[in-house]
Order: sequence, then structure tokens, then C-alpha cells
Amino acid sequence: MLNNIPNGAESLVYSLIASGVDTCFANPGTSEMHFVAALDRIPGIRCVLGLQENIVTGMADGYYRIAEKPACTLLHCGPGLANGIANLHNARRARSGIVNIVGDHATYHRALDAPLTSDIDAIARTVSDWVRSSARAADVGLDAATAVQVAGQTGGGIATLVLPSDTSWDAGGGVADRLPTLEATPIDPFAVETAARCLRDHGSETLILVGARANMAKALELAHRVARHDGADVLSEYVCARMERGRGRPQIRRVPYVNDAAIKALSRYRRIILVGSRPPVAFFAYPGQAGFQAPEDTVFHTLCRPEQNSVAALTMLADATGAPPVEIPDPGPRPDIVSGPPSQEGLARTLAAVMPDNAIISDESVSYGRDFHAFTHAAPAHDWLHLTGGAIGDGLPVATGAAVAAGGARRVIGLQADGSAMYSVQSLWTQARERLPVTTVILSNRRYNILLGEYRSVGAVPGQTAMNMLDLGNPVIDWPKLAESMGVEAAQATTLERCADLMQQSFKSSAPFLIELVI
Amino acid sequence: MLNNIPNGAESLVYSLIASGVDTCFANPGTSEMHFVAALDRIPGIRCVLGLQENIVTGMADGYYRIAEKPACTLLHCGPGLANGIANLHNARRARSGIVNIVGDHATYHRALDAPLTSDIDAIARTVSDWVRSSARAADVGLDAATAVQVAGQTGGGIATLVLPSDTSWDAGGGVADRLPTLEATPIDPFAVETAARCLRDHGSETLILVGARANMAKALELAHRVARHDGADVLSEYVCARMERGRGRPQIRRVPYVNDAAIKALSRYRRIILVGSRPPVAFFAYPGQAGFQAPEDTVFHTLCRPEQNSVAALTMLADATGAPPVEIPDPGPRPDIVSGPPSQEGLARTLAAVMPDNAIISDESVSYGRDFHAFTHAAPAHDWLHLTGGAIGDGLPVATGAAVAAGGARRVIGLQADGSAMYSVQSLWTQARERLPVTTVILSNRRYNILLGEYRSVGAVPGQTAMNMLDLGNPVIDWPKLAESMGVEAAQATTLERCADLMQQSFKSSAPFLIELVI
Repeated sequence: MLNNIPNGAESLVYSLIASGVDTCFANPGTSEMHFVAALDRIPGIRCVLGLQENIVTGMADGYYRIAEKPACTLLHCGPGLANGIANLHNARRARSGIVNIVGDHATYHRALDAPLTSDIDAIARTVSDWVRSSARAADVGLDAATAVQVAGQTGGGIATLVLPSDTSWDAGGGVADRLPTLEATPIDPFAVETAARCLRDHGSETLILVGARANMAKALELAHRVARHDGADVLSEYVCARMERGRGRPQIRRVPYVNDAAIKALSRYRRIILVGSRPPVAFFAYPGQAGFQAPEDTVFHTLCRPEQNSVAALTMLADATGAPPVEIPDPGPRPDIVSGPPSQEGLARTLAAVMPDNAIISDESVSYGRDFHAFTHAAPAHDWLHLTGGAIGDGLPVATGAAVAAGGARRVIGLQADGSAMYSVQSLWTQARERLPVTTVILSNRRYNILLGEYRSVGAVPGQTAMNMLDLGNPVIDWPKLAESMGVEAAQATTLERCADLMQQSFKSSAPFLIELVI
Repeated sequence: MLNNIPNGAESLVYSLIASGVDTCFANPGTSEMHFVAALDRIPGIRCVLGLQENIVTGMADGYYRIAEKPACTLLHCGPGLANGIANLHNARRARSGIVNIVGDHATYHRALDAPLTSDIDAIARTVSDWVRSSARAADVGLDAATAVQVAGQTGGGIATLVLPSDTSWDAGGGVADRLPTLEATPIDPFAVETAARCLRDHGSETLILVGARANMAKALELAHRVARHDGADVLSEYVCARMERGRGRPQIRRVPYVNDAAIKALSRYRRIILVGSRPPVAFFAYPGQAGFQAPEDTVFHTLCRPEQNSVAALTMLADATGAPPVEIPDPGPRPDIVSGPPSQEGLARTLAAVMPDNAIISDESVSYGRDFHAFTHAAPAHDWLHLTGGAIGDGLPVATGAAVAAGGARRVIGLQADGSAMYSVQSLWTQARERLPVTTVILSNRRYNILLGEYRSVGAVPGQTAMNMLDLGNPVIDWPKLAESMGVEAAQATTLERCADLMQQSFKSSAPFLIELVI
């Protein structure tokens, strides 16, 4: 800062802080050095390094889901952004709010097509609600405030601000104040009245389908109350960015992942009230199967869209139907630790048995964990975060970012398929560096098991060439060694009681721990 | 295959094989299962699994640089492609030929916006010369042949074929024959005459700047011969996709990386003949420095563009100038192994001392290795591959793909900065799985050293926040453990003689090996 006039990078930092951003997940490069220097000089933003950009963006996703406010990322040029796109895709599907700061060549250097030059805008637009490239230092502050406004809007948003290096180093940066929060459209009373009439007249054939922030406890309670009053059911979408669940919260089942099962589950309803959700569709198409999972003649009522305030909507609906408050059903006794070889149900029960209060579950268990919810509801209240966009490799970074957001005060437990874990295994290093209380359980089956299932449903027995692409057993990945190489203590378990022991031990420490559970 | 009529996926495999593709670097997902099944049923394509897509695309880049023909990749949907974009960016800058096969939702499923849906075309176009999405099974074969034609053209190309799953599983696939090779524009005799006149009239103030395939031995010999005749100089671009060098080949210096040094090196020339190269520009802009590195009044002559036949062009130029064949200068005695603590020169000399005949060097040494060329030319003939696009994380996968291309017959040596290695560390697992003869030397300085240099040049001493983003020492990555966890034998060296010992040991085995050289 020269005579109290900030350069562009400094105005960026001041403006981010003024807008409430206090965390930056970063993997910087040459073109961001002035931004790094500004972050260094101006206190107020915690910088967390990820060793690859998909770690960085995945952490920002996990952070938002718990903190409920955006962090920023610091990414280096087009390829750095590209490396982080998969987890930005997941974040977009989770409706998380993230401000990406992508360093770029100086404005006048772009035309020279230096080796790192690429079409950043095109890459950014595939995942962003808003993309802007600052034109000069004087604009950077307001651009940053606008980016935070987009990311911080009700319902989240991905804002990508491209920062040419000269807009960083040039003098004359303008600092911007926080901009007003962009609120979603208020709830439409007509939509409430329509939904109320649907419940009154057709309650027993109506499904209330919750999604997005309607998976938070308050909305779930209201949905449960309304449904109970008129004999309707409540289901959640299969993937939930964050579901508040466990003891004291209503137990909500999800639309099944498997298409046949989903079609069957939805076949009994004639009407679906969408509360932050969308009409359910299959994850993938299969020959001869419907992609749209509800019966063709289903009547859909949109009570509120994903970005709208579902608590307000459901409160209005409860009033309109006259549904009285109800007690949350007791989920039954807390399960005991299961012993013996791992099973899906056994692991879920064991987790429920040992999980500390207010834990955060980062679930990228893929096929193994599809029924975990069924056996974990009697655990203490907790948050459950899913892989939302199907781009594998978000479990470890989301766990890491969630732990950062919780400020070390909550235990994060990662339920992590081994194949997916290898996508973003570098997350473990950040967990060690920041001493985050994350316990990762690697579900080690040494294959892409979901794909083996899909392969068999193609009607074929995998031969050597197929197994070369689906099997992870040659060589076997030594997970404890891999974790320890990045500073995370680890151990292997082949029984559930050993896994329970290791989990409980890990909960006593504030450091990360990894358990390879051989399944 | 039903009654000998292939489905779309089978026609794809048959057509790829007919077009000469025999290697597929893969990371499949659900939407590619029919393609995987077809690869399994139809022999002829070797499938190599990468545990993350940037490994897959980086391997395809390394493969092309050595095999001089395209492999295909198998990627899963938009996020899978996005994960591989950074190394496709590098491949594009290397002018490698690659056929990407990107699985997508069924054509009729896209509109449902299922979780994995994204704008594949937009992502693909940022790195591709050609993008097509097959519309029906009958088109797949010809689409694939066209993709190989684009990728296999003289001068390479990135072709991305999007394969909706129904075009894979539907019957009625048409098998296409190989299409004719697309040849580059023939050399312009007028360009040859202009270059010859330039050399004749202004030889001593002329630079012959070689790039792309003009870094192969035959072109380098011709460039050397022509330059010698008229007193001109030869330099190579700083980054070379592949340079054939070592004993028996002319020793060509590169335009320096550091901008000041490059400007100085180019300041003595008034004329530059471009042979497969482009006018040199700075990697990054710096305040107050020129981005264009040659003097403003430099006269450029384009003898041939990067995709054109530089051997033909230089042969014509040699004829036009009457430059007689010359002996390749002797590079002097082969260096001895250096002992003691590592230094840049010492490591380069040691490498030159132990390198086996016909080795392949994959160089992602970043700042540490900028002068390696100066001390390695008296080694036996070898190929040297650089990081071409500045997107770090290509060294390990390029080494892996190069080893696949060489069919185990050549030793690959990776000179690998630690920070960059962590971007694509999963490559080690593929090296172990395929038992590839790759010796990786991790240059372990436990920091992003290039960035610390850049940071200091911003004029600041890094404080804690900056070091949180630039230092990799907390925790220290245990490289031998990390490699062993993925099935690669490894050891640490703190002296050059120990490093030499380990390298020589590793050369005796056909398996991969990793050396952490603490620098």
C-alpha cells in the first residue's frame, strides 16, 4: 500500500473482508503473488493450502455447507480452475456459495498467447452463476463485493472473478463495502394454497419431496408435521448437500438411488409437492428404462424452489392446513457396536453407536453406503453431507472444508470409498497441516464396485481387459502408509469392533486419523 | 454383437483399431460400461487405468510424444473430462495427438439435467481442435475415424468425441475404415528463399529459432548445418515437447525462462527465422517488463509453422544456401558422478553419468532444473520431454505414458519437483500396476520454490500467511512411504552419490522406482 492507497490486490482483500469472507482455500501461482502478498499484509483471512485445486474447491464446498457463508478460493489461471471444476460441479449441485478468485495473465499479456493462456471464461461459465474479469485495479474491489453478493445470496451461487495480474499490482484499487444480500423470491401464497388443497383432498396419495435446504431440521420438522396431519409421506431427494438428522429430528427416507427401486417407491403417489426439490430423475439412463422416476400422470406442485426459504413456505403450509405441532418420533434405542467382519448394516450401526454429539458425516461411500441412513438415525443429532453432483472425489475435501468451517469444534467423519478417495487423496495433507479433527474411514474393497455392478447389468462377465479398468487390487493400495506419508496417523481394521475402537480413539484427539476398513 | 451387427460401442472399438489406435488410457464410469464391455470382447486395444483423469490425459500426452501416434482416453462425463483438462492443455501446447472418448448421458436423458449433467462441449472446446457428440450408433464408427484423423494429422491435434450412452448400447453401429492422413501445408519455396537470403545477407545477426518437431535430431542437425554455414545461431524455444539430444546430436541451447535473461539473449539478433516455433514471449508478465522478448524491430521470417514438416523445410533451406553437411561437435567427455550434497549442476552431471542409452527424461523440475541441459549433453543419446503448457502435474503421467509407448524397452527418468508431483501422484500406482521402467527423482525442497522466488521479486519477505500457501514442510511428505503405499519401491537420498547408486540399481529392474532427493 502506497500512501494508504491500496493496489488492486489489497483492495480485493479489504473488500472480501468487508463482505464477510474470512477463509481462503488456496493453491497459488506466479500470477497471484500480489494477491498472496496482500493476504499476508492484511490480517483477517485464514488461508488454507490444498495441494491440487480439486481439493481447494471441494474444501470451499464443505465449508459453505457447514458455515452457511462463502469462502473464497485462490486458483492459478485456466488450468488451475480446470483442476477444480469437478468439485465446483458438485458444489453447484449442492447449491453452495463460493467465490473463486482465478489469477490470470496481465490484461495486455493475454494476446501473446503465453503457454498458460487458455479460455478461462469458457471453463468458468460451465459451473458459475456469475463470471467477471476485472478490467483495472479500480474495479477489483467492487467486482469482489459483487462476487460475494452472488455467492452469498439465499440459495448460494458460484461466482468466479478472474483477476489479471496487472489489476492486482496496479495502484488505485478501490475498496468496496458489503453489498446487500440478494434474497430469493418470497413464497407464493397461491402455491401454498394449492399445496394445502392437494394435501386436504388427496393427502394419502401425496408425497412431500424435500430437497436443498429443506433437509435442515426445522424444515424437516414442518414437513413431517404437515404430512402427518393429512396422511401424506415425506421423502428426501437421494442426494442431500446437508441433512440434519439423528435423534430429535424426523427420520426422512430418501428416494432410492437404484432406478427400479426409485420408480417403485414413487409409483404409489399421484401428487408430489416439491419443497426445494426437483422432479426426480435417474442418475443415469438405462436401456428401456424411464429416466423420469415418477408415474407419467403425477401432478407436481412447486411449494418452493431450491433457493427459496423452505421454512417460511412450510410454516405457511402448516398454517393453511391447520397441522398442529407433533412430537418427533423416538428413533428407538441407540445401536450397539457390531463385531465381526464388516457389513453395510454393521458399519452403519457401529457408526451410530460411537458417533459423538454433533458430528458431521462426509459421505462418499458410493455403492456401499446407500443404506447407511436406515441404521444411523438413533445416533445423536448430526449433519450428513452427500456427494451431490456425482463427480467422485469430493468426500475428503468436503470433510476437510467442513472441519475448517466448524473451527475444530465438531468431529468430522468421512465415509469414503477407496476408488473415489484416490481422486483427491492430497486432502489428507491439508488435514494434517491444519490439525483438523477428521476421522476418515476408507471403505477398502479394492475395486470400482459400483462399476462392477453396472458392468454385470450390461449382461457381461468382466474379462481381463475390463478388470484392468475396474479392479484396484493390483497393486493393493496401503492406506495406512499412504495416510502416514502425508502426516495423518492411520491403522487398518478388518473387523467392526476394531474399527469402532479406532474411531473412538481418534475422537479423543484433535488431529486427523484414517482407518482402512477392509470390506 | 448381435448376428454380427455391432452395437455402437463395438463399432467404436473396431473403428479405433482400424485407424491404428492400440492403447486406451482410461478412467471409466457408469455411462461407459458398454464401451468397456466392447473393449473387453474385442481384442486389440491395451487399456491402462489411471486413478484420476489428469493422470489419464497426461499419459496420453506422454504416449504421443514417444509413439508419434495418438492413443485414446476414456473419460466419464463432463467432470471426468474437466479433471483431465490441465494435462490436455499441456498436450495441446505440446502439439500431441489425442482422441478423447467422453461418455455422456443417453441423448434423451440430457434434458432431465441429472446430477452429472454438465456442458461437456464447452469444457472440451477449450482444449480441443475438434469436438463432436455422436448422434446415433450408426455414426459412432465414422465419428471415431474422424477423431483419429484429426488427432493423427501432421502436427497433432486434440479430438474429443462425446459418446452418449445410447449411441453405445444401440444396435446398428457402423464400422469405419481408417481415413487418409491430413498432411500439413507443404513448405512454401518463397519462405525458403526469404530465409536463405536472410542468412546469406545477415547471417551473423540471425537466429534460427526451433520449436515443435524441429527439436528432433534430424531437424536439429539441419538447423545446425545451415546456421554454421552462414554464422547464424540456433536456439530452441524454452519448452520442448520432445528434444532429441545427447551425444551425436547438436547441442542446442534454449531461450532462457527468466524474462530478463531471455530479452538479453535475444537482444543480439535483428532477424529470427522461425522453424516450427513462434515469436518468443514471457511466460508471465511482470510490472514494467516487455512480454514480447525479441527487440521491437526484429524481423521475423517463418520458414515453417509448428505443424509443418521442418525436416523438409530445413533440407530445402540447406540446399538453397548451399550449406554442406557438418560433423556434430563432440560434447566432450561424459561427466562423472558427483558426490556430496545435491546441487543443480551436480545432479545434472550425475544424471549424465549414469543415464542408460536411449533414455527418456520427463522433466517437471520447474525452477530447479532450468540449467539441466547445460550439463547433460555428453550423456548418451536420449529424449527430453518438458512441461509444455505450464500447468503443473504433467511430469509423472507423461513419464508413465512415455514408458507405455516405449513398450518397456526404454528407461524413463522423471525429474520431478515435489509440489508439482503432488498434483498427479496417483501416477505411481499405474507405474506399479503396469510394471513400467520409470525412475522418478523427486526434487524435494518442501516448498513451492518458484513461487517463493516470485514472491520475493514482488518485493516482500513472506510472513506466516504467505508461507501457509508457499511452504510444503508442515507436515513433511514422506515420499518413500507415499510411493510404497502405491506399490512403487522407493528410497531417500541426501547426497548425489547415493542418488546415483539408487538410480543405477533401479535401471537393473524393469519395475518403477522412486528416489526422494532432499535438496
